[in-house]
Amino acid sequence: MNYVSSAVCMVCGHEMPPAADLTLCPRCGGLLDIRYDYRRARQRFCRGLLAARKDPTMWRYRELLPVAADFAPPPLRVGGTPLYDCPRLGAALGLKRLWIKDEGVNPTASMKDRASAMAAVKAVEGGYSQIACASTGNAASSLAGAAASMGLRSYIFVPQRAPMGKIAQLLIFGARVMRVQGDYQDAFRLSAQAIDHWGWYNRNAAVNPYMLEGKKTVAMEIAEQLQWQTPDWVAVSVGDGCTIAGVWKGFHDLYECGLIQRLPRLLSVQAAGCCPINAAFAKGGPLVPQEENTLADSIAVGHPRNPDKALQAIAASQGAAVNVTDEEILAAMRLLGRLAGVFAEPAGAAALAGLSKAVQAGILPPEATAVHIVTGNGLKDVSNGIKAAGEPMDVPPDLEDLKKRLQA
Amino acid sequence: MNYVSSAVCMVCGHEMPPAADLTLCPRCGGLLDIRYDYRRARQRFCRGLLAARKDPTMWRYRELLPVAADFAPPPLRVGGTPLYDCPRLGAALGLKRLWIKDEGVNPTASMKDRASAMAAVKAVEGGYSQIACASTGNAASSLAGAAASMGLRSYIFVPQRAPMGKIAQLLIFGARVMRVQGDYQDAFRLSAQAIDHWGWYNRNAAVNPYMLEGKKTVAMEIAEQLQWQTPDWVAVSVGDGCTIAGVWKGFHDLYECGLIQRLPRLLSVQAAGCCPINAAFAKGGPLVPQEENTLADSIAVGHPRNPDKALQAIAASQGAAVNVTDEEILAAMRLLGRLAGVFAEPAGAAALAGLSKAVQAGILPPEATAVHIVTGNGLKDVSNGIKAAGEPMDVPPDLEDLKKRLQA
Repeated sequence: MNYVSSAVCMVCGHEMPPAADLTLCPRCGGLLDIRYDYRRARQRFCRGLLAARKDPTMWRYRELLPVAADFAPPPLRVGGTPLYDCPRLGAALGLKRLWIKDEGVNPTASMKDRASAMAAVKAVEGGYSQIACASTGNAASSLAGAAASMGLRSYIFVPQRAPMGKIAQLLIFGARVMRVQGDYQDAFRLSAQAIDHWGWYNRNAAVNPYMLEGKKTVAMEIAEQLQWQTPDWVAVSVGDGCTIAGVWKGFHDLYECGLIQRLPRLLSVQAAGCCPINAAFAKGGPLVPQEENTLADSIAVGHPRNPDKALQAIAASQGAAVNVTDEEILAAMRLLGRLAGVFAEPAGAAALAGLSKAVQAGILPPEATAVHIVTGNGLKDVSNGIKAAGEPMDVPPDLEDLKKRLQA
Repeated sequence: MNYVSSAVCMVCGHEMPPAADLTLCPRCGGLLDIRYDYRRARQRFCRGLLAARKDPTMWRYRELLPVAADFAPPPLRVGGTPLYDCPRLGAALGLKRLWIKDEGVNPTASMKDRASAMAAVKAVEGGYSQIACASTGNAASSLAGAAASMGLRSYIFVPQRAPMGKIAQLLIFGARVMRVQGDYQDAFRLSAQAIDHWGWYNRNAAVNPYMLEGKKTVAMEIAEQLQWQTPDWVAVSVGDGCTIAGVWKGFHDLYECGLIQRLPRLLSVQAAGCCPINAAFAKGGPLVPQEENTLADSIAVGHPRNPDKALQAIAASQGAAVNVTDEEILAAMRLLGRLAGVFAEPAGAAALAGLSKAVQAGILPPEATAVHIVTGNGLKDVSNGIKAAGEPMDVPPDLEDLKKRLQA
């Protein structure tokens, strides 16, 4: 059983039953939020229940997820990703304690697998066999993988700039891939029209409130892996804002159920070349769309469709917003690789760059504890990996020559 | 505690204590094998012990690994990879039951992480802080990642033709990468000289007997995930032969300890353009080196240094050998992606192609159960992924245009 009570519009407050194929509010077009009956949930959903549960995937939190008691989890193993204690990396940043949550080892190598697994479950629940989304990459590849594993058909709209690694994944998974001549806006708009026309299940996180429910499980895992000791800060790279909102909801759910005693502060990290959410947060005003000038393609979202949950999450957590340059992102990729052995895609390393900057700016004191979520694997974007990593040493097959070089 | 009794030369039978930095036999240059006292081990190493153990990594089998009781597992989470039951893929191949073991979700995205984690542990045990190998790919990147996570220095020798993607992974992890002007033989030879000169820990699987001990844990996981019911066949892609030998040893160890009641048969799959081990197995004669004509770079080993363990494993298991063309490998990548949602690198899909061929040839009857090990992630080799998958559909941002294309 689950404890979902209803879906509520974030804008007009309209309340409705949690149908499987909810999108925006039918009255005002506002984004919906899935609500739970925490008073009832907390009677069952407790630390002991989880301690006894063997399922290591995201579905171990099923009482706080919008799924039926008898739902069939998708075949791919999503979640249960490692949380690494990284003392050397923490010291390099000037932090007392730093953990890395490596989401790059999910089935299709990004955190988006959590949302797509949820989408696949809800699509099946709603009787759909075709499912679609627009994405800069990871949402798409995760959806295509989940769909393939379940025998569903997927339709994917990507902007022209999506890296080939992500496109290769889509095609291998048998998705119908539409590479739209234009930017993310164009891809999103065309996907919306096509979904409407063909009646596919809509996995776009900007309109489907269940995506965030999948993503929130990363926060639940972090809390459980830290034995329910909340870190002071959680650093998240931000594109359309759905991930950071999901992280917040995960902690919030645990707090409401009494599994954690306090909430973390959120550090929202965006690329300096594309930071509309951080800009809106900084000036406390409405979001103004921006250009998409960053190599971190997964967070290059110039016009987030529904930034309200993200903005509310940052504010409610007493969080902060930091922007980082592409050079700082590349440096963070190197640092993460060299001191933790984790290869992140640019967007996955951006939050580490932001954490470093926030420590230097005094936003985080040295005694703070922090978690950095690596949202995607560096193998998804090898060309930027090469840009970050530098060049190998070219040597002749001669030991005497090598002796001179290594001693130099 | 562990139950290692000694190291024994496969050629001359010379027995020696299991020092941390063993390489080839000091008497005859033969490959060594690590031996255990199974009679004592079985008194403790049992199904119940494992059922009660929470550690999901390769180190859950530590009693049957060459590690001290108080050893510190490396930080990266290696092993504990998913085993997927794939009914649609099995049906497509004509098999009663097929499972996929997805090793691509290891920390650096290949099964080689198991060997490299072992190398790092043995290096530390032996007092080394520097560790080296020659490799063009997965062994190198896994070693570089493991070393980075532990603060060890890694030295990697790659041949000139090593693809930049793999070099990027190495450099991100901070390895000293020597790109040797020459082929793999030149890189291997220079690495051997340099290891000798500087006294680095030697991770070359062709000489270090502990690498196989790490790899064998994949078989132990498969058996445990199948509740100790041995599959009829296990299909493994074969390059230098160390992986299939490791798989065999894992099952063998479990059998000796009484955890499984029978042993599986091994299907050795090589690329038709580079199949020296399968050729030697087929004719029952000595290995003759071959050219390396296959796109499956991870198994393109024309001159395996020490094929004896692999040949013995295939024979002892009453196994079979099948060669597959590059086209069959690409088709298997598509099949695996579309029916299981798993993206494999070419070498990782080769064994699936071989399994399909073996069913068609009547080597496996339709009622057989089989496991296919996906040894590496497709994101490691995106260009071959594209080759297998085809191109996306380039479309303008226009619904009317899309309607025509999708109905066409």
